[in-house]
Amino acid sequence: MTKLVALLTDFGLTDPYVAQVKGKLLSLAPDCRIVDVCHELEPYAPVHGSFYLWACGPHFPKGTLFVAVIDPGVGSGRRLIYLEKEDHGYLAPDNGLLEMILGDDTSGRAFDVSEAANVPGVSATFHGRDVFAPLAARLATGESPESMGFEIPLDTLVRLPDRGPRMKGENLLTAHALHVDRFGNIILDIPNEPWMEQIRTWPLAAVARPRHCTVTVVRTYSEIPESGVGILEGSHGLLELALDRGSAAKRLHVATGDTVDISFIRNPTSI
Amino acid sequence: MTKLVALLTDFGLTDPYVAQVKGKLLSLAPDCRIVDVCHELEPYAPVHGSFYLWACGPHFPKGTLFVAVIDPGVGSGRRLIYLEKEDHGYLAPDNGLLEMILGDDTSGRAFDVSEAANVPGVSATFHGRDVFAPLAARLATGESPESMGFEIPLDTLVRLPDRGPRMKGENLLTAHALHVDRFGNIILDIPNEPWMEQIRTWPLAAVARPRHCTVTVVRTYSEIPESGVGILEGSHGLLELALDRGSAAKRLHVATGDTVDISFIRNPTSI
Amino acid sequence: MTKLVALLTDFGLTDPYVAQVKGKLLSLAPDCRIVDVCHELEPYAPVHGSFYLWACGPHFPKGTLFVAVIDPGVGSGRRLIYLEKEDHGYLAPDNGLLEMILGDDTSGRAFDVSEAANVPGVSATFHGRDVFAPLAARLATGESPESMGFEIPLDTLVRLPDRGPRMKGENLLTAHALHVDRFGNIILDIPNEPWMEQIRTWPLAAVARPRHCTVTVVRTYSEIPESGVGILEGSHGLLELALDRGSAAKRLHVATGDTVDISFIRNPTSI
Repeated sequence: MTKLVALLTDFGLTDPYVAQVKGKLLSLAPDCRIVDVCHELEPYAPVHGSFYLWACGPHFPKGTLFVAVIDPGVGSGRRLIYLEKEDHGYLAPDNGLLEMILGDDTSGRAFDVSEAANVPGVSATFHGRDVFAPLAARLATGESPESMGFEIPLDTLVRLPDRGPRMKGENLLTAHALHVDRFGNIILDIPNEPWMEQIRTWPLAAVARPRHCTVTVVRTYSEIPESGVGILEGSHGLLELALDRGSAAKRLHVATGDTVDISFIRNPTSI
Repeated sequence: MTKLVALLTDFGLTDPYVAQVKGKLLSLAPDCRIVDVCHELEPYAPVHGSFYLWACGPHFPKGTLFVAVIDPGVGSGRRLIYLEKEDHGYLAPDNGLLEMILGDDTSGRAFDVSEAANVPGVSATFHGRDVFAPLAARLATGESPESMGFEIPLDTLVRLPDRGPRMKGENLLTAHALHVDRFGNIILDIPNEPWMEQIRTWPLAAVARPRHCTVTVVRTYSEIPESGVGILEGSHGLLELALDRGSAAKRLHVATGDTVDISFIRNPTSI
Repeated sequence: MTKLVALLTDFGLTDPYVAQVKGKLLSLAPDCRIVDVCHELEPYAPVHGSFYLWACGPHFPKGTLFVAVIDPGVGSGRRLIYLEKEDHGYLAPDNGLLEMILGDDTSGRAFDVSEAANVPGVSATFHGRDVFAPLAARLATGESPESMGFEIPLDTLVRLPDRGPRMKGENLLTAHALHVDRFGNIILDIPNEPWMEQIRTWPLAAVARPRHCTVTVVRTYSEIPESGVGILEGSHGLLELALDRGSAAKRLHVATGDTVDISFIRNPTSI
């Protein structure tokens, strides 16, 4: 049985850590197939990793096991979780990494597999190699999650504060930059539906902040006018602020995690 | 059938994009084997990607399918091309990415596979995942290019301006930095043959610009004297300017894409 | 036979070099399985690569072939070595890269395989692709090292100066930063055993230099107090200086390779 194991960490690509995890995994589950999701996740930021799991999960083959290690609480009492949901498995510390995968629905089964960490030889600081890799290998070789821990109610998992998009009064939409990508595109926590339809009905114009920029509704990057920024239906199912061959993040002074305000303007001269 | 699929993009390694492409590819062609060529190509610069395809192609196994996504025109009318040439396949947007692979000879067959993008659910901004990955999966699982589009004459493909090396008068060779590598070596668009032989006959000395540096002809990095820069027959079959354990690009103030002048000096005191 | 080939280079991830090596390897040994250890090793620094081989080797499956290319002497007379030790194989230039794998014990067998470089078509500057990859392919497909060269005594291999930890007088322990990781943790060349036990017996307090910081003995990152730095038993079996969600390297002004002094303080007011 060839199991696909997708790795997601904040270990970076300049240290020996990712290789140690892969070496351990291949030692214990020689037939598994490893795919790197990303190792440049923001250190100590489960919310960022949560976006990646949510953004990548649906595109992977059924049965893929995601192993997500952004684990600032390593060695403390935080639980280790195995979540089965929508034909995928997710192994992660219980610190909010599963937030967006869990979402609002109540499907899926979660297991507390923390006990597996209490074995001799486990370092206090590197559970990615010493705990996650062996657990992933057991799952990848067909062991049942029941044999590694016990089922727990989904609503006991650590959740992150709900931030989604919100209207403030009649003219202000406030949201957050879930991610700023390499090109400077700002991925907002505003679902394409139903928001794009609403935004299209806005009178006259809109302005995004922190830095004051006119917003134009477009379909592709190449339609974005040179001045201002474009807003479009992004490929993650979330609205994006973007420029054509330029960085919207720089123009708007926005970084991953920042609040972004978009105000409707009924009369552009009265801004 | 295990098909080797070699990926080349400007997506970087910090975003979820490469993983989404791989997930989609493995979902549709579970047996394909993915190799990363590079994901740090210069954004929006097909000429740079063209060099990578040309530099890497010949070293890969027969039958490798290269999928190259540097696609600033995504969502516009640019064509999608599948090129078969010298036992390899190349899937790329028609924007110059295939320039160096096409070269001057007229072998190979090209197909317009743009139609494949006109299917429901394709995002307007991320064809790497929504169009290239599914097309690659179809090719990787044995589908014929004829079934995905129609053959087109090679001479209809978008070509980049021919820049090659040129003599200006009797004493000046002007060329370009195709690539500046991590070590600061400058890879020029000057073929080792026949140019090295000519350069060896130059009288006395030579000087490279923009910044004024004496050029010494050498065979290996360790032969390069501390002052000036070395010129040698590079491993890509192209001449390189280099230092020994230092950056020729910094010393000469050259970046990828820049013009580089090398002037012959008949008498070094008359520079 | 599927052979695991683990690659370790200073080629970086922005150049075509790693892909050329992989393409060549897969052309000659189609069934081998390639794992990236790291390609961001410090250029020209065999001591750094030596740490990675030592840190990763033990976690990989038996029979893994490590191919390590940090090779500033490429094209010069340096030997190429194949080392068999503790169920792993290591292919590397003879420049100190094998230092920590060799260690103090005398087990293992080494072969001089330099002759393999003397074949037509080998570039003078890129032995990773033209020599290491073909050699690795021969080993990966079952060829014996005897057929590629001849055995040599282990004590003829290039060794690096022994730097380990040393006591200077009664109150000063001097050591080195083998590696500073992405998080700013400083990995010292001080084995957890027997040093941690000794450090625990130190009177009152300790101070690390270059920059003056109080050192606290801890077990996990989250136990480290906000002021000063923590010292803990690292996951490599070596002591580490660290902060909780911050960079000990920045606080102490330490980079990879630097000397680090830790002085015992019998009376903290007398520093």
